[in-house]
Amino acid sequence: MAPPQDVKAEIQVNEDSISQRSISNVLFIIAMQTEASPLVNKFQLTEDLDSVFPKGVPWVRYHGKYKDLSINIVCPGKDNTLGVDGVGTVSASLLTYASVQAFQPDIIINAGTAGGFKAKGACIGDVFLISYVAFHDRRIPIPVFDLYGVGSRQAFYTPNLAKELSLKVGKLSTGDSLDMSTVDEAAIHANDATVKDMEGAAVAYVADLLKVPVILLKAVTDIIDGDKPTAEEFLQNLAAVTLALDRTVTQVVDFINGKSFSEI
Amino acid sequence: MAPPQDVKAEIQVNEDSISQRSISNVLFIIAMQTEASPLVNKFQLTEDLDSVFPKGVPWVRYHGKYKDLSINIVCPGKDNTLGVDGVGTVSASLLTYASVQAFQPDIIINAGTAGGFKAKGACIGDVFLISYVAFHDRRIPIPVFDLYGVGSRQAFYTPNLAKELSLKVGKLSTGDSLDMSTVDEAAIHANDATVKDMEGAAVAYVADLLKVPVILLKAVTDIIDGDKPTAEEFLQNLAAVTLALDRTVTQVVDFINGKSFSEI
Repeated sequence: MAPPQDVKAEIQVNEDSISQRSISNVLFIIAMQTEASPLVNKFQLTEDLDSVFPKGVPWVRYHGKYKDLSINIVCPGKDNTLGVDGVGTVSASLLTYASVQAFQPDIIINAGTAGGFKAKGACIGDVFLISYVAFHDRRIPIPVFDLYGVGSRQAFYTPNLAKELSLKVGKLSTGDSLDMSTVDEAAIHANDATVKDMEGAAVAYVADLLKVPVILLKAVTDIIDGDKPTAEEFLQNLAAVTLALDRTVTQVVDFINGKSFSEI
Repeated sequence: MAPPQDVKAEIQVNEDSISQRSISNVLFIIAMQTEASPLVNKFQLTEDLDSVFPKGVPWVRYHGKYKDLSINIVCPGKDNTLGVDGVGTVSASLLTYASVQAFQPDIIINAGTAGGFKAKGACIGDVFLISYVAFHDRRIPIPVFDLYGVGSRQAFYTPNLAKELSLKVGKLSTGDSLDMSTVDEAAIHANDATVKDMEGAAVAYVADLLKVPVILLKAVTDIIDGDKPTAEEFLQNLAAVTLALDRTVTQVVDFINGKSFSEI
């Protein structure tokens, strides 16, 4: 059933007013401290020691003003028992959910490192603006559940941003493993992905659930269809590629500053 | 460094006071509406139409009093776009997190269906009390990250409950796929799992993060190392096995009613 004409008009007005509004509150979801630290320094953010998150949760928040923007950078922090960064979809989705509730951002940026496929044009140090996300390790072979598992969704469409910064644009496939099994590979291929990470589709799922636009920027630390083992190449390139990521993220933030959704 | 004697004593007192306190507020996390409905009827719960959850989120809450207990049953509900139950670790972890924040439960019970291994003694209709949980699809081959990925943790230890209700006890392995790839199979074997589901380890992770004891009850709908296809066997047995699950859940709730943590 089509909505009555006046409801339709109201929706249009709401959408227009959102798209014309200046972006002022940006939330970064970043999985690893190593990825976040240079940005925290660049934007001169301060760590929130009196956490807004529940007691005992290791999530870390940095915040401050940069130009006309309120910026929050949140990381899952170090696992309470094991002391490593809380990577993967469960941590990322919880952190996104709790941070949207706490900070009511205008937009979410999920920035991080990823593996890339050279067959799809990815090189070490490339930073991709993500067009679509999907999961590659949620196989549910029951009709409709299969689509839910793949969870394909579009990131917020930012044609001006892509053009202005000459960003490479590609699709992202997300899974909870750093390595890639044969079945993962087939699913990633089906997702037509250029890059593979461990958080993006989960962040986008929560952003969609809570109706917050999301931009994803993924920097390539390792070539998945290359000849080096992923874990080794990832650790070797992490620091250098993080610098490339931070350069692009800064350019993106500078571009967004003072603009409305319809202008990016 | 050992804590000073008085701090140690205080922790002891706190733990004792928690373990002596009567359980009064029970939160059920249930992935599928089909699994939840008979329990909602049994405990005569009412659906919360004025949701405590964020606007637009499909999560469903039923609540009420049963004997001396305040009971909340929450389900991820139907995916906004696709209309199927929001199964899997991301939905389950978000729902657990938001529900603990909203209802401050004394204990979480994650009840649901699962696949079982006949080689480990599982039969269709068995309801297992879970001793340990772990993930089988989070492979991160970097030292310590590998352990974080597996995320093995103990469920709340309830020796009296197991004995009194003559429950079969087993380990659970969780992953986001209904099927089982060869690498999943190896990981499930390494986890020494008798049953396999799509939510348990994620619920237990959040429960641990927020320091709420968790009990997991998993009813076997399909035999993974049998000769029938999982999806087909799952759908065939879902309704009947849900009845078995509900019988056991009711027995567990009746047993918990009026008791303290140290008595269960």
